[in-house]
Amino acid sequence: MTDLSPLSELTPPPFATRHIGPADADQTRMLEAVGFASTADLVAVAVPEAIRAKDRLNLPPAASETEAIAELRALAGRNTVLTSMIGLGYHDTITPAVIRRNLLENPGWYTAYTPYQPEISQGRLEALLNFQTVVSDLTGLDVAGASLLDEATAAAEAMTLARRAVRGSSNVFVVDAGSLPQTKAVLRTRAEPLGIELVESDFTEALPDCFGVLVQYPGADGEIRDFRAVAEAAHARGAQVVAAADLLALTLLAAPGELGADIAIGSSQRFGVPLGFGGPHAAYMAVRDGLQRQMPGRLVGVSQDADGRPAYRLALQTREQHIRREKATSNICTAQVLLAVIAGMYAVYHGPEGLRRIARRVHRHAVVLAAGLRHGGVEVVHDAFFDTVLARVPGRAARIVAAARDNGVNLRLVDADHVGVTCDERTEQLHLEQVLAAFEVSGAVLTDLDAAAHDALPEGLARTGDYLTHPVFHSHRSETAMLRYLRRLQDKDVALDRSMIPLGSCTMKLNATTEMEPITWPEFAGLHPYAPAEQAEGYTELVRELEGWLAEVTGYDAVSIQPNAGSQGEFAGLLAIRAYHHARGEAHRDVCLIPSSAHGTNAASAVMAGMRVVVVACDDNGNVDLADLDAKLGKHRDRLAAIMVTYPSTHGVYEETITQICERVHEAGGQVYVDGANLNALVGLAKPGEFGADVSHLNLHKTFCIPHGGGGPGVGPVAVRAHLAGYLPGHPLRDDSPVGPVSAAPYGSAGILPISWAYVRMMGADGLKAATEQAILSANYLARRLAPHYPVLYTGRGGLVAHECIVDLRQITKETGVTVDDVAKRLVDYGFHAPTMSFPVAGTLMIEPTESEDLAELDRFCEAMIAIRGEIEKVASGAYDKTDNPLRNAPHTAACLLADDWEHAYSRAEAAYPLPSVREAKYWSPVRRIDQAYGDRNLVCACPPLEAYED
Amino acid sequence: MTDLSPLSELTPPPFATRHIGPADADQTRMLEAVGFASTADLVAVAVPEAIRAKDRLNLPPAASETEAIAELRALAGRNTVLTSMIGLGYHDTITPAVIRRNLLENPGWYTAYTPYQPEISQGRLEALLNFQTVVSDLTGLDVAGASLLDEATAAAEAMTLARRAVRGSSNVFVVDAGSLPQTKAVLRTRAEPLGIELVESDFTEALPDCFGVLVQYPGADGEIRDFRAVAEAAHARGAQVVAAADLLALTLLAAPGELGADIAIGSSQRFGVPLGFGGPHAAYMAVRDGLQRQMPGRLVGVSQDADGRPAYRLALQTREQHIRREKATSNICTAQVLLAVIAGMYAVYHGPEGLRRIARRVHRHAVVLAAGLRHGGVEVVHDAFFDTVLARVPGRAARIVAAARDNGVNLRLVDADHVGVTCDERTEQLHLEQVLAAFEVSGAVLTDLDAAAHDALPEGLARTGDYLTHPVFHSHRSETAMLRYLRRLQDKDVALDRSMIPLGSCTMKLNATTEMEPITWPEFAGLHPYAPAEQAEGYTELVRELEGWLAEVTGYDAVSIQPNAGSQGEFAGLLAIRAYHHARGEAHRDVCLIPSSAHGTNAASAVMAGMRVVVVACDDNGNVDLADLDAKLGKHRDRLAAIMVTYPSTHGVYEETITQICERVHEAGGQVYVDGANLNALVGLAKPGEFGADVSHLNLHKTFCIPHGGGGPGVGPVAVRAHLAGYLPGHPLRDDSPVGPVSAAPYGSAGILPISWAYVRMMGADGLKAATEQAILSANYLARRLAPHYPVLYTGRGGLVAHECIVDLRQITKETGVTVDDVAKRLVDYGFHAPTMSFPVAGTLMIEPTESEDLAELDRFCEAMIAIRGEIEKVASGAYDKTDNPLRNAPHTAACLLADDWEHAYSRAEAAYPLPSVREAKYWSPVRRIDQAYGDRNLVCACPPLEAYED
Repeated sequence: MTDLSPLSELTPPPFATRHIGPADADQTRMLEAVGFASTADLVAVAVPEAIRAKDRLNLPPAASETEAIAELRALAGRNTVLTSMIGLGYHDTITPAVIRRNLLENPGWYTAYTPYQPEISQGRLEALLNFQTVVSDLTGLDVAGASLLDEATAAAEAMTLARRAVRGSSNVFVVDAGSLPQTKAVLRTRAEPLGIELVESDFTEALPDCFGVLVQYPGADGEIRDFRAVAEAAHARGAQVVAAADLLALTLLAAPGELGADIAIGSSQRFGVPLGFGGPHAAYMAVRDGLQRQMPGRLVGVSQDADGRPAYRLALQTREQHIRREKATSNICTAQVLLAVIAGMYAVYHGPEGLRRIARRVHRHAVVLAAGLRHGGVEVVHDAFFDTVLARVPGRAARIVAAARDNGVNLRLVDADHVGVTCDERTEQLHLEQVLAAFEVSGAVLTDLDAAAHDALPEGLARTGDYLTHPVFHSHRSETAMLRYLRRLQDKDVALDRSMIPLGSCTMKLNATTEMEPITWPEFAGLHPYAPAEQAEGYTELVRELEGWLAEVTGYDAVSIQPNAGSQGEFAGLLAIRAYHHARGEAHRDVCLIPSSAHGTNAASAVMAGMRVVVVACDDNGNVDLADLDAKLGKHRDRLAAIMVTYPSTHGVYEETITQICERVHEAGGQVYVDGANLNALVGLAKPGEFGADVSHLNLHKTFCIPHGGGGPGVGPVAVRAHLAGYLPGHPLRDDSPVGPVSAAPYGSAGILPISWAYVRMMGADGLKAATEQAILSANYLARRLAPHYPVLYTGRGGLVAHECIVDLRQITKETGVTVDDVAKRLVDYGFHAPTMSFPVAGTLMIEPTESEDLAELDRFCEAMIAIRGEIEKVASGAYDKTDNPLRNAPHTAACLLADDWEHAYSRAEAAYPLPSVREAKYWSPVRRIDQAYGDRNLVCACPPLEAYED
Repeated sequence: MTDLSPLSELTPPPFATRHIGPADADQTRMLEAVGFASTADLVAVAVPEAIRAKDRLNLPPAASETEAIAELRALAGRNTVLTSMIGLGYHDTITPAVIRRNLLENPGWYTAYTPYQPEISQGRLEALLNFQTVVSDLTGLDVAGASLLDEATAAAEAMTLARRAVRGSSNVFVVDAGSLPQTKAVLRTRAEPLGIELVESDFTEALPDCFGVLVQYPGADGEIRDFRAVAEAAHARGAQVVAAADLLALTLLAAPGELGADIAIGSSQRFGVPLGFGGPHAAYMAVRDGLQRQMPGRLVGVSQDADGRPAYRLALQTREQHIRREKATSNICTAQVLLAVIAGMYAVYHGPEGLRRIARRVHRHAVVLAAGLRHGGVEVVHDAFFDTVLARVPGRAARIVAAARDNGVNLRLVDADHVGVTCDERTEQLHLEQVLAAFEVSGAVLTDLDAAAHDALPEGLARTGDYLTHPVFHSHRSETAMLRYLRRLQDKDVALDRSMIPLGSCTMKLNATTEMEPITWPEFAGLHPYAPAEQAEGYTELVRELEGWLAEVTGYDAVSIQPNAGSQGEFAGLLAIRAYHHARGEAHRDVCLIPSSAHGTNAASAVMAGMRVVVVACDDNGNVDLADLDAKLGKHRDRLAAIMVTYPSTHGVYEETITQICERVHEAGGQVYVDGANLNALVGLAKPGEFGADVSHLNLHKTFCIPHGGGGPGVGPVAVRAHLAGYLPGHPLRDDSPVGPVSAAPYGSAGILPISWAYVRMMGADGLKAATEQAILSANYLARRLAPHYPVLYTGRGGLVAHECIVDLRQITKETGVTVDDVAKRLVDYGFHAPTMSFPVAGTLMIEPTESEDLAELDRFCEAMIAIRGEIEKVASGAYDKTDNPLRNAPHTAACLLADDWEHAYSRAEAAYPLPSVREAKYWSPVRRIDQAYGDRNLVCACPPLEAYED
């Protein structure tokens, strides 16, 4: 063989060929079905000329997986992980390896979606119920939710919850002077637009009139104070009491609920969740009975299924923004489910006695350290503390912190005269020695100090009574038992590792392993968010590059990755608009136009940003009604702040009029906010920052491959044009932005940014564009295949959709009684997660295939939908009973199908194996259809007793 | 709270509390059930005083998981991973990340057992069938097996297969002078005891009379030769032709089968399996039709289940040592299943076109390199090559190799005048430049060379025709599709992540995540076995420590971890005995006594070591019959080489007479080999090296936590007393032992030794002892709970068993017709892997719980066994039909239970949910009981066409 086969022709196929599902030949078949010769032709028709980007994205050439990993290793190598004793709400912890591997590194967990379809989410719902039980037990409060974004935003949510709950006249919220500084900063950001006045207090003087008080327990400087008197005073004024509490400390200290707190919030990070340079971590919130219907975020509750068996699902969803829009309790949507699950599992693995032992050891290290400092003549400021020792060292603080750093330990430089030292689960005697050496304490024999020193927990604040008594916290103590518990829960759920999750607006694409692997490397996972900058060079470089690439992709001039969820990105974007108007002396501009089809989050965010929501109508095609827009612009011209639109629209259509909308809003003095939820239909083809928008937020957990984690983490960078760049979120500990921070950590959920970095790095300009083109092609392919069976709503030019399509069941429901719910639950029997239900239009299903699904899977889904259409026909024709049919009875469990008596008009096999392909990999729903109303009527949000499961 | 709670009382619980299943309270309950006050009391009765170790093991204090990982990171840091261009059968490769995470790092795959219970092993059996198809297609031979240990031992197996197949008079096996040097070395080790004469030949002269010929294709020096003429000459002499072939090269080169090979062997390492400093990797063997019944190792075949549906299982098991003992085709038992699965998946993910592209690129890099060398005036020895370029550089070789090393590349120093350079999947232009620089070639422009140079594959040896045409090699090209395929297969199987695997003699204990994590770190995974020693300091230190600890645990003086399976450890141990006798001038000692209860491997190994097997009878209690021993000793005294006994016995009993047996054998001039299979009953309590044995092999994949991987990898260190230390296996490339090497790599499967290192490091002396005690307690607990329902065979003092127990079904079978097979398959319906069936006694089940199972799981297993006993009673009483009952029909698939007509005397629910606990986590067998005989009659060992699965 003397052929010439030059290397240039042998280049390994790019990562994009693994990320994008359909191979070339399949793409050709799909194009044929849709009626185009090439994706370029398809895009030319589908995407309006007016918005199309002219140039190829200016990104580095696509790296291979091997190259990307090598570059990430180099970046990781530029981070330096010292022992962290900084504290400030972030503590090093030991993630049990069995949990890291089988949960955090397991696509069966991390690729799952938010448990809106509870029947196929029982595993993670149980895990979240464990988390809620931990929080509720340790805080001594009645109801705990399934996680918030971080401690600072949780504090802000508690503040607004208190305000809703009180409805008094005071606008004052009192904040403990001993609170975490980033909490104070975020509270400031959040209070200002709402007209809330923050008053800092050390509680030595009488409490002012207020609607709420926040106490930090223990304080940021370590001190443990009994806040009973503060709580009594607050309650006497009709105010709510919020305790920001450390869950580990609570294993030894009196519960906030016992001390009078109405609400408790805090971080669960130190329950096994890596530091990750600031996140993602799950914050918690618990409330006393009576406040649960006002709580932000998700709440898991127990209900029952069609067979009367206990089953879990999200409770009280009417509180949420996707139902209540501007009346929502909060804009929180994606939370931190994966991390809450880890924290819950950490408690499951250690049990109450293990947690208590860890806490005692942490405390004891702090006690010995304090004794050592005193031995060396260093003044220890507080007598009562849990894990943090505050040392007064007049004029020497900086020198001591530097000396400790040279010894390998980061301390907290409080001010010129004070140093904070915080112990954690990883603290060892060696670290105490390193710290004492930095303080120039000599001659301290730790074992002697240990023998002599008394604990430093206040007498009157001892924890009494049991907690975590449920068997789940006592049954998984060996690694084997833990491993199997994780597997058992995982097996109950449908995630991307089983089948397509065709959720419209959620972009459930591949979360590639190469993208995921770096996040658990110690050099990324082990960094404290307030570690000195020179120890985080790798991170800052990665952030700088990623922000630059995102700016290039979106056509904006500046990006901040601080917002740790889409909702926070929206909020940050609106704050930028608000600050811009204020800076121009137009503070009166407070009207935010929002089309009726918008994501509910938009409205909730606008309210949080102090804006008034004015709804703009949509026309019959689902597009913004220009006439109504003009009317609203006319009416609110003087007070117009912004319009928030989603592009392509939430109906999955490229509106032709987008540029006109932008022009008209600008002409009226408003700013244009383009919600980046549907960016997966634009990347490489069009740039919001160039076709007229001023701000967008992006969802890195949609378009940029961060997995959904069963309901978080997400990252929601905010991107702005140059005139808004000065109003991006600031550093939580620095006064460097007129807006202030929106998250507790400067880079938000920095720990998962390597995922999106790797995605962009490996796709390059061509790969990203190809992905978008394939996403559009796949959606149109589905629309074409399903159109003969279900009406497809809302199409744009050429009868095309963008990256998702809506099938309309309203007429079918009217004629047959078969609802979207029935179709969604029946899809479970076919092994599929349902598409998005009744959004943006009630009675419809919105399907987004993404580019990552291959043709075989798309066809399998179509065949399921078509087969279901056949089943609906049988209902229509009377072949199936109207109420007793496989649709209404779906999902079917194996147990219900194996009953001795089978009295249905359809066979067991018809129920279980409606298509031959289902036999090959049958997914068995662990429960039957869940009664939502029952659970809300009988609210149970902690682990139910085992007897509940008995037959 | 002013308590004193000193740190010493707050020490975190040791790793042993996570490794050992039962918590303290449960241990107390179990002791009560067995009738002892403490484990010490139990051990005092169970373990004979005579063998009990007096001292605590002298090991470093137990490290925490965090400490062990830190120490392993430090060791890893002492390895230096350069670019490897050494070749010699080990090639760097890219493990696709999706395969690494979801297969190599996934307990659902790595904790599975060998697929002897095929119904619950369909996933890995399908994966192995993929592997066999790859091998069979690429080698052009009819039947491929499911992996061997390494290329060198595979060559030895091929040699002995050839000898069995030929049965001629010649004892000569001709070896290609161009073979890999380690292959030659292992062939020498294996040939000598069997009286095979190895003749090396470059085939330039006439072939001598011989029974077989081995050709290397391409040769170790890179040259590709057409061996058709050699094959014809060999066949003319009635000899078999073995081709040692590179699978990647075969994607471009004519298949060995087409060139006349009867047998092909080689390594599949470069199909995505990390180098791991030498292993574990899967070797392959394929044979032409007619030889399959002589093949060593495992062979997966297609059969059908009770419903006539295709199903996979191990074929032709009658060849294997566990059935044929000294007549076995080989002593191979544990192979390299996990690695074979990876190699098969690599082919699934890349498909034939991907593999071909990789191969062409590897080749092209070699071509350009050769052109560059020639350009620089360096002589390239061979014109036809695939990936390896041999350069003649008189007197300069060492200097060039050193220069390349300084540039970051390891080359092969062939001799003073020759350097070998091998390209692989990771080779990039940069590496060629580094190599050319080392050769002091300047001015070579690679793109120009690439444009001009012709390929170097010989014209007449071009691959023709398609391969890997089965759909499985064309359907999983996106990462999403691959991920789901892996999940789907995993879900078919039962591994330790689902439930207890109570296999007697297999010690299916926890494979802890902390033990597993380091093996995929690049510093352990990326090292070539023949990298310079100074680059492997971390590995050599780890090996040195582990060998030392194993010596301490076993009471021996020296340990070699080279043997990469228990079978190889046995062989190495017997070789040491043999060499010892030879060295003492007692070469005539060739009788090996083996009790009738022994593992079949023992006999096969003895035969391989050139010994004659003489069986010693066992008494009714399963112990060695001392009278028969004396008789045999008397008869064979002069020729006695050794006795091989297992301790505790394969019956799971501590024989009281072991010290007498040792004494009598020694007195007769023999050596005592104690098979370490049951070492989990001894660690910390007794040391074979101290109670009378001279040699043992250990199974690190049993006692020392290396996972079974679905049938390998295993590691089988050989441990000897001082007088045998000089006869341990030697280095494959050095003449440093009278015995020679038994494996291809100096440290065998070095890549997985961190697992056992971490286990010992984290358990410490107390943890190891506690584990042994718990294993004994758990086995006795099971025996006590089951005894009222099933007779327990063979107990020792106090009616106690050791670490496993045998329940006897023979009488039950006689009375009811219910067989061990029925019970084993019925256990599947209950969610359990069956215990060991009919070993060591036909008609019995041997149960080994290990220390890692907690009490809840032990009880769940007992309840299943007891419920099955109840079902048997129903057969006995006539309540169940003798042939149509849930036992005989087990396992039940969901599909069979959902049939419209249910015509059995028991209900569907009785079949599926015989106990309430089964409902909580039902495992569904993917197939019904498999017809073994059908598959052997209709042998199909490659992926069957899809039509086979149609209804």
